[in-house]
Amino acid sequence: MATSPIVIQHRTGTYPVRFDSLARILSDLPEDCLVITDSNVDSFWKLEGKRKVVVPAGEGSKSLDQFGKLISDCVKLGAKRKTALVALGGGVIGDLVGFVASAYMRGVPFIQIPTTLLAQVDSSVGGKVAIDMPEGKNIVGAFYPPSAVYVCRETLSTLPSRQFKNGCAEVIKYGAILDEKLANELDSIPLHENDERLEQVIEQCIKLKAEVVAQDELDLTGVRACLNFGHTVGHAIEQITGYGPILHGEAIAVGMVVEALLGEMMGVTPAGIADWTDQYVQKHGLPSTCKCLNNENELVPAMRSDKKNEGQGIGFSLLTRIGQCKLVTGVEENTVAAAIKEACKRYAGD
Amino acid sequence: MATSPIVIQHRTGTYPVRFDSLARILSDLPEDCLVITDSNVDSFWKLEGKRKVVVPAGEGSKSLDQFGKLISDCVKLGAKRKTALVALGGGVIGDLVGFVASAYMRGVPFIQIPTTLLAQVDSSVGGKVAIDMPEGKNIVGAFYPPSAVYVCRETLSTLPSRQFKNGCAEVIKYGAILDEKLANELDSIPLHENDERLEQVIEQCIKLKAEVVAQDELDLTGVRACLNFGHTVGHAIEQITGYGPILHGEAIAVGMVVEALLGEMMGVTPAGIADWTDQYVQKHGLPSTCKCLNNENELVPAMRSDKKNEGQGIGFSLLTRIGQCKLVTGVEENTVAAAIKEACKRYAGD
Repeated sequence: MATSPIVIQHRTGTYPVRFDSLARILSDLPEDCLVITDSNVDSFWKLEGKRKVVVPAGEGSKSLDQFGKLISDCVKLGAKRKTALVALGGGVIGDLVGFVASAYMRGVPFIQIPTTLLAQVDSSVGGKVAIDMPEGKNIVGAFYPPSAVYVCRETLSTLPSRQFKNGCAEVIKYGAILDEKLANELDSIPLHENDERLEQVIEQCIKLKAEVVAQDELDLTGVRACLNFGHTVGHAIEQITGYGPILHGEAIAVGMVVEALLGEMMGVTPAGIADWTDQYVQKHGLPSTCKCLNNENELVPAMRSDKKNEGQGIGFSLLTRIGQCKLVTGVEENTVAAAIKEACKRYAGD
Repeated sequence: MATSPIVIQHRTGTYPVRFDSLARILSDLPEDCLVITDSNVDSFWKLEGKRKVVVPAGEGSKSLDQFGKLISDCVKLGAKRKTALVALGGGVIGDLVGFVASAYMRGVPFIQIPTTLLAQVDSSVGGKVAIDMPEGKNIVGAFYPPSAVYVCRETLSTLPSRQFKNGCAEVIKYGAILDEKLANELDSIPLHENDERLEQVIEQCIKLKAEVVAQDELDLTGVRACLNFGHTVGHAIEQITGYGPILHGEAIAVGMVVEALLGEMMGVTPAGIADWTDQYVQKHGLPSTCKCLNNENELVPAMRSDKKNEGQGIGFSLLTRIGQCKLVTGVEENTVAAAIKEACKRYAGD
């Protein structure tokens, strides 16, 4: 039985997030659609009777080059203004296809079928779509809400272990920044692949995110930017390691630890929370440190193009306690470098 | 004295269109702005004290490649989320910079200063921004209303003659499709460079367009698509001649004649209007035919990717009388080819 959908509000309408089986999801797709997926997902799920484009798996596909190729494919496959583009895959596919859908013929319908935990709890909801440029992650994109998000039950049990942990990073972030109860539950009993709580936890994350997004859809007031806990450092890690070797969730796990420590050093985050965060991420099989932290001379400049920045300095979402956070802009680069150095020292041996 | 601005409504707000001198316009720009212009405009207007990027003049700059370069420039020049991108130039600059503004950091403020008649009466108003792909003109873009449009008085008298005529094509289109009185006035006394009526005619065109756009901003119901009279054929001419040798206005002038004839052959347009259109465009120094019309085997396929198409056949905005038009979709390719052949025969000797 399909449960009733979560309804997400945005500026000009609403869209449903529905949990269902892949078979039912696929049979409900509009006839005039074009499914875009990646080579991993394509080899796993067999799609029959749908127009389909397969792009290489990996963050490298969130490029201007791949964007241009998909636009050409849309024309070649006869996609028109009413043709729905269906993103079947993880966050990379959702972000890429969403940006294609936002721009092709100035916008065509867009359906998300997130197949990774990461995409289900985070990137498929909220309407942000984007591609990367050499100058920075998600530097080119749009606010383009989907017409529907379908969360596929099967995916939850068939995800490779590293990808599952990757998604856990965003799940535990929601606990840390918005929901003390969830954080404590996950800290006591870490989430695992066959966890009975899984669907309920995903639902809770989507609801938490939807509430924040409804307050600040266009990311203008700092409310939505709070969802970026761990992401200023995390994005910089992904950027200097070339997007790929370190997964997004792994990078933001390290980022959360560094940013918790930064918060402590700045007096925003109560003492002890960095140590707690270090344990919280490790319990979920995620790294709390990485070699590239030794390279603060590359990391800090990589943060300069972060979209949260205004005027001088760098912007961060910092914990004010477990389950609460706030946006702090204008943090001096020296302070950030010092926090990275301290994190290296303190958590290197983990 | 600045006249009071025209206020244009869109889905989520309004923006003003103001007529003023360039000096006053520039002094009113927000401090945190980045002016993007082309090499022609740059050599003409001297901009001091503004961050500026100059792109090569011509339709070739409405490319994915130039889009990517401008995004990189925005990062390098430190453009942030609140930095306004100012499009100073013609339709190419407006469309290109508008799409950059819509996508950079998922959208930054966007100010239009159209410097050609074409951009003033048409492309700067209505929120459509786009770039071209080898597969078609404006195939990638967004609906992204500007924060303001400033129409610069000086431009009206300093425009090269061919560019002025280029703009006249859109002006006379507004008469033909929406305003019989305007059409008759312009048919009696064609618009010229030092015409006293010029500012008033521009205002009237902007108002006519704004009224149509307000009814169908996202181009969903066919109301807005009516503005495309002459454009299905015109875009195809531009496409097969490689964007550039034939200007947009010249291409749609030819397009209006062919589409008037198509309308007559289909019984949609009253007899005699194609001949009237042929004279109407020629009085304004515009071509009513071009060599590439002999090439209907290339022209018709080029129309297949037109955004007005739904299902089979090709979509056209056709005149039902002077000052009125309607959208007709699903026109068979044979019929279109026959109209092109007939136009070649009938108007070749002009």
